[in-house]
Amino acid sequence: MNFGRISAELFAKMQEKRPLIHHITNFVVMNDTANFTLAMGASPVMAHSCNEMDEMTGLASALVINIGTLGTEWVDSMNIAIECANRKGVPVILDPVGAGATAYRSDVAKSMLKRHKISVLKGNLGEISSLAGLGGVVSGVDSLGGGEPEAVVSSAWERFSTITAVTGKHDYVFNGRDMYVIKNDSGYLPRITGSGCMAGSIVAAFISMEKDWALAAACALAIYSMAGELTEKDGVKGPADFRMKFIDMVYGLDPSIIEKNVRIEKKTV
Amino acid sequence: MNFGRISAELFAKMQEKRPLIHHITNFVVMNDTANFTLAMGASPVMAHSCNEMDEMTGLASALVINIGTLGTEWVDSMNIAIECANRKGVPVILDPVGAGATAYRSDVAKSMLKRHKISVLKGNLGEISSLAGLGGVVSGVDSLGGGEPEAVVSSAWERFSTITAVTGKHDYVFNGRDMYVIKNDSGYLPRITGSGCMAGSIVAAFISMEKDWALAAACALAIYSMAGELTEKDGVKGPADFRMKFIDMVYGLDPSIIEKNVRIEKKTV
Amino acid sequence: MNFGRISAELFAKMQEKRPLIHHITNFVVMNDTANFTLAMGASPVMAHSCNEMDEMTGLASALVINIGTLGTEWVDSMNIAIECANRKGVPVILDPVGAGATAYRSDVAKSMLKRHKISVLKGNLGEISSLAGLGGVVSGVDSLGGGEPEAVVSSAWERFSTITAVTGKHDYVFNGRDMYVIKNDSGYLPRITGSGCMAGSIVAAFISMEKDWALAAACALAIYSMAGELTEKDGVKGPADFRMKFIDMVYGLDPSIIEKNVRIEKKTV
Repeated sequence: MNFGRISAELFAKMQEKRPLIHHITNFVVMNDTANFTLAMGASPVMAHSCNEMDEMTGLASALVINIGTLGTEWVDSMNIAIECANRKGVPVILDPVGAGATAYRSDVAKSMLKRHKISVLKGNLGEISSLAGLGGVVSGVDSLGGGEPEAVVSSAWERFSTITAVTGKHDYVFNGRDMYVIKNDSGYLPRITGSGCMAGSIVAAFISMEKDWALAAACALAIYSMAGELTEKDGVKGPADFRMKFIDMVYGLDPSIIEKNVRIEKKTV
Repeated sequence: MNFGRISAELFAKMQEKRPLIHHITNFVVMNDTANFTLAMGASPVMAHSCNEMDEMTGLASALVINIGTLGTEWVDSMNIAIECANRKGVPVILDPVGAGATAYRSDVAKSMLKRHKISVLKGNLGEISSLAGLGGVVSGVDSLGGGEPEAVVSSAWERFSTITAVTGKHDYVFNGRDMYVIKNDSGYLPRITGSGCMAGSIVAAFISMEKDWALAAACALAIYSMAGELTEKDGVKGPADFRMKFIDMVYGLDPSIIEKNVRIEKKTV
Repeated sequence: MNFGRISAELFAKMQEKRPLIHHITNFVVMNDTANFTLAMGASPVMAHSCNEMDEMTGLASALVINIGTLGTEWVDSMNIAIECANRKGVPVILDPVGAGATAYRSDVAKSMLKRHKISVLKGNLGEISSLAGLGGVVSGVDSLGGGEPEAVVSSAWERFSTITAVTGKHDYVFNGRDMYVIKNDSGYLPRITGSGCMAGSIVAAFISMEKDWALAAACALAIYSMAGELTEKDGVKGPADFRMKFIDMVYGLDPSIIEKNVRIEKKTV
């Protein structure tokens, strides 16, 4: 398969369709996430009130649930939103930020995975290792370690029957059969807050358009890291400069750049 | 009337008085809104607790209510804040973000317009068309269409007896008699999140200084779009670069630039 | 004492240890605070749910409490977080944003100072003057005046037995015996929102490493203002440009720059 071409086509399709991505995400990254979603050519909305979940999920092409700054009422809203999305066939991505750092975050994430249909579970190595029972170490929202990535996504798949992505230097996506390894990598992305959270928005947009969610997630994550790579290559003066130029890089991406620079490998288990 | 000169004088007066603008706004744009308000020379405060509404509105020169990320408690706070502001004669601008997208947002906005005195209602075409009963189409927080703008602000005026502004390529402000059309326009502003929200802050500052609120709102919106125009003209590399340079453009504006570049037309109905 | 060298050594130690700084802070500045904390080489986490306070404070090296956008539930969380931190010996910095502007903010701050052990109280002149009973004037979150800074930190110390820092053109830190005056100063810092809030993160990181909290706070504030100074010296186009370059300046700081540029004076009372 020509993953570069598939990625480029999905990106072009997204810019044509401009899918509405409904986010219930954390306070830290809402602004960046909204600007990133606009820059890639989709439309963001942030809405967390139970009073509008049914309608908002009905308008949306995909739902992003990110537990970065949890609170009791927000957890209720998230659960209602996922229920609504599940009923309507709207795909859902769960980003279990900080799972493994506190029991609360781990429990909320596990409960969502048990109660609902999550289309894609995406987190860092510590978070997913922790949820998968492979001893992830998470300090705050940073991964300090976990299992071997391929084993971790496999374990998560077995435990939750959910397509799982682990992000890091390389990213891994597994659907029980296909193991995607994304070799694009930017050393600057971990130096800005919300880099994982923004990645969730492009995964959400892509799974709203492509039924093979693991493939869609792999292409989305590859484009995301690739944009980071290219931003770095152009030269940046620090993380704040990188953050600005990264958004503008995403805004200026065209299919030929994507086709040429995406690096995805696939193994079938 | 020389709208360029009036706009320039109001801007200079704002920088001299440095009015405190009390915002109850959405989580996505709080940071941008605060930085924009500082850059234009006013003083922002964000405060949503019922416990301090009476005092905070007493300190403020104007109140911005923006329903971009609603929740039950925040709606209560907003209503209390508007009541306090009304009692004290502090002008209030309402930005009904996402009205028309969900019944909840439409109902909250309509209820505020019914229960309170709103000095200026400001939204995009879909939002205001929807509130005015002219079939606005809103997806998330984006306008996908509505009535003809002059008809929309007129209908909103008739329905709510509130000065109404519709923003878009051109902006329209109507007070039942004077129809202002703002011809300044920046194609980049819609590409950053919160561009409508920040516009609310300058409208708030201007109506705190000039009793003719429609005129004040028109001048504020013209300066806002003009700053976007000038930023673009200087050259930008993408929406993130634009966002940064836009704030710095606002920071560096002087009366002569404003007088020369503001483009407002007025018709009396 | 060679404060430049001490500051440089603390900064290097922070980058080596990468302390986790737990923030319960306001909605306006969460993103900036997180990016600043990453840029200086520490690890930020924002968590406000009572359900995870015990664990999160257990992971953290220091706790930042910032009351910039208060609400009843958040006050409860803050109090629980401080209790947990006190029990575990985790140092706590309190930033009483807007104290003096409303009774609610003043009362919340005073109650925290009375009920808990606060390691460092840090605010602007109006806020601390107000808490210390010296007639601070605060409009929104801006200081409009107060007592003479050395008298203010002394009074706050007497009233609360808490190491107190007043920020402004010069910063003052007092522990009942040592009065530190930080002469580094950047005129641009007050022009961006959250500049005081971000300063809290570096103070928190430094008091997590150095038992002499007044010394640690003085070094942290000096490095912070110094980074602003150096950013300005390199040339900036406005507050938004400054904000970006400031973060990148902090990211690129090395001990020799710090040692050379920090300007702290100490008097023993």
